[in-house]
Order: sequence, then structure tokens, then C-alpha cells
Amino acid sequence: MVKKVSIGLLGLGVVGSGVVHIINNHQEKLKHQLGVPIEVKRVLVRNLEKAREVDVNPALLTSNPDDVLNDPDINVVIEVMGGVDITKEYILQAFSAGKHVVSANKDLVALHGPELHAAAEKNKCDFYYEASVAGGIPILRGITDGLASDRIERVMGIVNGTTNYILTKMAEEGTSYGDALKQAQELGFAEADPTADVEGLDAARKMAILGRLAFSTPVDLKDVTVTGISQVSTEDIKNGSELGYTMKLIGYADFEDGQLEVHVMPTFLSNDHPLASVKNEYNAVYVYGKAVGETMFYGPGAGSLPTATAIVSDLVNVVKNIRLGVTGEQVVKNYHNKALKTPSERFSQYYLRLNVKDEAGVFSQLSKIFHEQEISLKRIIQRPNKKEKSAEIIVITHQTSEENFTKLLDKVQNLPVLKEISSYYRVEGDGVE
Amino acid sequence: MVKKVSIGLLGLGVVGSGVVHIINNHQEKLKHQLGVPIEVKRVLVRNLEKAREVDVNPALLTSNPDDVLNDPDINVVIEVMGGVDITKEYILQAFSAGKHVVSANKDLVALHGPELHAAAEKNKCDFYYEASVAGGIPILRGITDGLASDRIERVMGIVNGTTNYILTKMAEEGTSYGDALKQAQELGFAEADPTADVEGLDAARKMAILGRLAFSTPVDLKDVTVTGISQVSTEDIKNGSELGYTMKLIGYADFEDGQLEVHVMPTFLSNDHPLASVKNEYNAVYVYGKAVGETMFYGPGAGSLPTATAIVSDLVNVVKNIRLGVTGEQVVKNYHNKALKTPSERFSQYYLRLNVKDEAGVFSQLSKIFHEQEISLKRIIQRPNKKEKSAEIIVITHQTSEENFTKLLDKVQNLPVLKEISSYYRVEGDGVE
Repeated sequence: MVKKVSIGLLGLGVVGSGVVHIINNHQEKLKHQLGVPIEVKRVLVRNLEKAREVDVNPALLTSNPDDVLNDPDINVVIEVMGGVDITKEYILQAFSAGKHVVSANKDLVALHGPELHAAAEKNKCDFYYEASVAGGIPILRGITDGLASDRIERVMGIVNGTTNYILTKMAEEGTSYGDALKQAQELGFAEADPTADVEGLDAARKMAILGRLAFSTPVDLKDVTVTGISQVSTEDIKNGSELGYTMKLIGYADFEDGQLEVHVMPTFLSNDHPLASVKNEYNAVYVYGKAVGETMFYGPGAGSLPTATAIVSDLVNVVKNIRLGVTGEQVVKNYHNKALKTPSERFSQYYLRLNVKDEAGVFSQLSKIFHEQEISLKRIIQRPNKKEKSAEIIVITHQTSEENFTKLLDKVQNLPVLKEISSYYRVEGDGVE
Repeated sequence: MVKKVSIGLLGLGVVGSGVVHIINNHQEKLKHQLGVPIEVKRVLVRNLEKAREVDVNPALLTSNPDDVLNDPDINVVIEVMGGVDITKEYILQAFSAGKHVVSANKDLVALHGPELHAAAEKNKCDFYYEASVAGGIPILRGITDGLASDRIERVMGIVNGTTNYILTKMAEEGTSYGDALKQAQELGFAEADPTADVEGLDAARKMAILGRLAFSTPVDLKDVTVTGISQVSTEDIKNGSELGYTMKLIGYADFEDGQLEVHVMPTFLSNDHPLASVKNEYNAVYVYGKAVGETMFYGPGAGSLPTATAIVSDLVNVVKNIRLGVTGEQVVKNYHNKALKTPSERFSQYYLRLNVKDEAGVFSQLSKIFHEQEISLKRIIQRPNKKEKSAEIIVITHQTSEENFTKLLDKVQNLPVLKEISSYYRVEGDGVE
């Protein structure tokens, strides 16, 4: 019978410090839930001398990974060091030594989740990573446990706080993308090199993980189509707003009859959609289940304490499993084969903004093309610009296939009256179609 | 080793039919998750002859409860018959026979939860009731598992779909309370006798359950202060909207330093609050945890399939526990003593609408009283009504104690210039104060 659970921490940055803080400050509650005390036994750090945000006995710190990975007293390893290759080796080593692992590392899980799960299963170890997606929101548990009996058909998420902060500022204050990014950097919501966030890569990693768990299907990072927000203009955001839509960077995963679609794209959401009112750095994941219908999980997507809270929740589960002798059962089974949807199978509504010559009959030429592609229009705005002898045309289409829409764009491109295809975006959540 | 799990259903109304439907239609997924098949073995019904919404072998139906409660093959009893006294006896009998119980019965759990938990623990049985609060939203699991390591300080919920539908119609279409209620009844969102919903009793039961689990504190139904929505006017909703607030029936539970407050009241929420945008019959529960900060769970609060999904999710947990030999461990421990907050300890902002004589110096008389009670004002609207020689004054206060606000009302009541105290409501979510 386990009398005490000893933790080895890999990393002691802001999140690691948060984990130590929660464990130290919630001893009473943790003991009530678990019946045994939890202690942090060793902490791997790069620099033994660095001043720490949290009160840790310096004797626990080590710069030698083996002090954590080979300590037979340590039952659970919490990985908050980040990185992929070396970190993966450490975690595999932990599993080989029969240690359970809790990780917050979305890059690692997105890239190597299946391999790590296989190693965990082989060694009868638990492997949890709630904190890797949407920080403090218990979404992975919600998907794997709470909605366990439901067939999940679609997951849509605002899973990157940086881009949501930027888009919120652009929408509410008319700030340009560049200025909003600068503000986000000043406030610590964006990194000095914001590429992974603003180009959608961070969101893509999270969507790969969500898709895997939601659909029990082997989703690879390369299955995720990605477009970031760096090309989004305040003008489009304003146009959308006039039409009743809010621009969000939406991670979308959909699984129907064995056909998978996963993408991350700037998307106009109908203002009625629950995700449309998720603002600033907040995250939310909307899940559509066949039986339950719409549900949404909302919360902070990042931050030391929210992320640390998710890690400690995983830890609580692991400790319960250890005490009950049932570790290694939480295997993520991929029992559906995967086929990626082709463009003819991917359906959406679209927002399209065109700059055309201000001539008679322009709209009828356009209408003809839409009609040929069997794309019907839901909303149309036409605004003449007398000075430039041009007109701006904005349309919202009804549902159509990506293939069809691409063909439409080709034809529009060849119209002599066209000056420019200014922009186009997916549109979601505008009622059932 | 368990080779098969057999279910006994108590009741086969819409929710019970939904449970049978999900179990029948998700055999493959359930078997993948659990490793054993699940079958519905007996179903207790009142009327054996009645036509059923779901395809059930008539041989499974019985009108004798002992056929379910005394069948040694039945491992899990699912209670979806409703009612309190007889139902409680059936459930206690099930526990005595070593059967695990999943229930959707908020009335029963709100009134007798602690006694039922004690009986479950004594017999090493599981007792789950996710469906009793907010139908398809996995909020109880979110609170007990997901946020396990966090200290939950406050729970606020829109936990009654009927009243939320009515308030949404009143706000969006200016419909009167009576007409909105009639609409809700026609659409099946309100019952013929809507008392339990519109007077807040249904929400109070859910808040008692939420408070218990969130704070590990013995919350009784009688600890919950309740005001319903039947006195809410479209006029107040419109006034609130002009000031940036949305009227919702909010269930509120707060626990600080051993002091508990639980109430259900029509409340003005700042439009920025995540709960403010929850519309129509949807439910949502907002949880404030010390570490994680704000999170919110959103989804359908009722409906056959959402509720049935929650029940089957509980069933999945029970079956896992059975297979792992760890039933009866999910005891809800009440380890905090409870003291109810007194009016001097309950703080809130307030909305107050007064009808006063239109005389010089009225506002300075009012100001003096607010000043005496040390209540400062955040927003003021004064509107003269020349015809009636009166004026309407609406204020939003800063945070004050309920005791203080009651004293203020007494003093206002005695002002010679007062014609009427038209209404007052709590105001929440307007930033940190």
C-alpha cells in the first residue's frame, strides 16, 4: 500500500513554480481527496543558483536528470521543462522505470503522443496532459470522461490566447494587427517571436490533440491545415461586424463517417455562436456531440496558476489510480481508421470581398458565376467608390464545398471587371444549413 | 471478473428512453471504453401497456420494483422515475443489495444526498448524479475532478432553462413576463404549472448540490435564499440594458473563511460577464477557483438526450470502477464546517429604481442617505415625468453589505418625497471591487 506519493519535477519555470505552490498550499485538501500525502522530492533545473519565484528547499534542486528519473522513491514525474527531443527521451526513461508522467507539453504530445502512450501502456503507467490544451480548462477530461457516452461530431476551439487578444483589440478598438500585436507583447500575452501563435501553429498542435481524443482517431500534426491571423485586416473585421459576425482564429475538427477534417483558420463566427463572445486572452472549446448537442468549456488558456492547476488535477487522477492499482488503463485507443476529407467533402459558408470596376452589369456577371457554381448568396453589400471608379462587393454565401468555392475564385479571377480579390474567409455558426 | 454489466432502469419516460437509446446505439464505443458489454436487463414502469418512444423488448418491462432491486444479476440501477420518498426507499434498497446507483433526480439529491451517500459508502457502492444539475454539462465532474486541486471560491450558474428562456425573450423582444411564459409553455420549455421553475426552487436545488460539491460543505436546501423571476418587469430589464447589464436568474454560492452564502435571485450581470451571453434555454455554470481563475461550462440544461448522455457518462464511470474493484471510493466528504453568512457579511452591488416627487432638492436628500450608509454610487439616471409630476431615479451602487442596503431602503421608505420603491436587484460581475 502506498503511504506517500513522491513527485519529481522536470523544470521549475513559472508553471513548475505554480505546481509547487499549489501542492504546498493545498496539502489539506489533497490529503482529504487522496488519503495520502504528496511531496515534491526532486526538481531538475538548468541553473542551480538562479533565484526562484517559489519557496523550494535548495537541497531538492538538481541539474542531473538521473536524480529524478532513477530515484526509486519517485512515483510520478511532472514534465514542465518544454522542448521535444530530449524531453521525449526523459519521459520514455521515466516510463521504463515505471514512473507515471504528467506533462504540459503540447508540442511533444502533438508530435509524439501515440508513441508515448504506447510506452506508457507497455509499462502500465499513466500519461496525462490536460495542461497541454487550453491551460486551466478541463477540456481533455471533459471529452474523454464527461462526454464519454456521446459520439462527438465536431470540436471548435479558440485555443490560442495571443491571437484572441489581438483579434479582440482589433475588433473593439479598431487597432491595426501590428499595433495590437505590439500591445499584446507589452502585456506579456505575446512572445517576442510571436510566429508560433500568430501563424496558428500553436493552435494546430492543440487541435491535433483534441481531434485524437474527441474522435479516437490518429490525428497527426500534418493533417491540420493552418492559416494564421497576420493577414487579417481591421477592414474585414469591421465588415464582418456590420453583417453580424465576429472574426476569431478557430481551430476546427470534424469527423463524419470516417472522414476527418482538421484546420485552424481565421473564421467569421455568427455573433450568436457561443464562441463569438469569448474575448481577450480567454480560451474556449465548443463541442458538438450527437446526443448532447452544443456544449462549451471556457476559461484561461494560459498562465502559471491555471496551467499548474490542470497539472495538479492530472496528478490527483494519477495518485488515485496508483492507490487503486489501476494505472496504465487510460490508454487512448485509436479504433477509427482515418481518411482526410477532400476539398469536395469540406463544406462551409464563405465571406468574400472583391474590388471591381464600377461598371454597369458587373453584378450580373458575378451572379452568373455564382449560379454556375451552384453557390447561393445569403448577404450582399455593394459600395461604390466614385473616386477610384471602383466598387467593393462583399458577399456571405450559403454552405458550399471548398472545391466549388475554389473554382468560383478561379472564375472570378478571370473576370475582366475584377480589380482584386481582397479577401475571403470561412463563416461558421450561422444556424443549421 | 465481471464479464457483462446488467442495468436495471427505474422509469422509462423521455430520459429513460434516451438512456436505452444511447446504450443501444453506442455499443461499439462503450465496449471499446469498458472492455465489457452493457445490457439493459429490467425496466420498472407504471404502465406495462403504454406505447414507448424507444425500442424495448416488452419482456424486460415490469411493474414490480423487486424485479429490479432483487435481481442478483443487475449491477447498476439507473433511477429516472423522479419523486422523492418512494424513490429514496428504492435507492436505499438497491444499495443494501450492493447495487450501484446513477440518478438524475435533483429533488432527491438536494434533499437527501448526504443520507444516500452514507448508505452508498456503507455498502461500498457508487452513487453518481451528474444529470441532476445542468443536464448535458459535465459540471459535477468538472468541479470534483477537473478542478480537484483548486480551492473553489465561488460558483455562479444559470441552472434553469425555463427562466433563462423567459428572460431572454423579455430582453430581446420586449415581451412581458406573462407572454414570455406562455410562449415557453407552448414550446415545451415550461411546464403547465411553472412554479418550481419561475419561483427559483428548481435552481435552488441545483445550487445546494453544486455548493456541497464545490466547497465540500454540508449545504442544505434550506440554506438557499430564493427569489424567482415572476416579479421581474420588462421595464427593469430595459433600464439594465441601457446601463450595460443583462438580467439573469443567477444561482450564487460563495465560500470564504468557513462562511457560506447560497442564493438564487434575479440579478443584473455586467454584459462583460461570460454568463451574460448565455441565451434561451441554455444553461451555464461559472466557477471561480483561487488558482485557475474564471472558468465556465456551457450547454443544454435539459432535454432527453443531453440528460441521458450525462447518465450514461456516470454509468461508464461506475462500470470502470466495478471492473477495477474500486466502487464506493467516490465519497463526498464534508470536511468543512458551515456557518451561513449574516446580512452584514453578504456583499453586493445593487440596482435600485425609485419613483419620487419631482421637487427641488430630492436628489440631495437621497444623496445624504446614501452617504450616511456609506454606499457610493456608480451610475445614476434621473428621468422626470412631467405629467405625473414625478421623477424616476435609477442608481447602480458600488459594493455594500446587504445589511447596509436594507437600512438604506428603510430610510428611503421614510422620505416624504418618495412615491414608491419600484424595484431593486443585485448586480454582479462588474469588475473586481
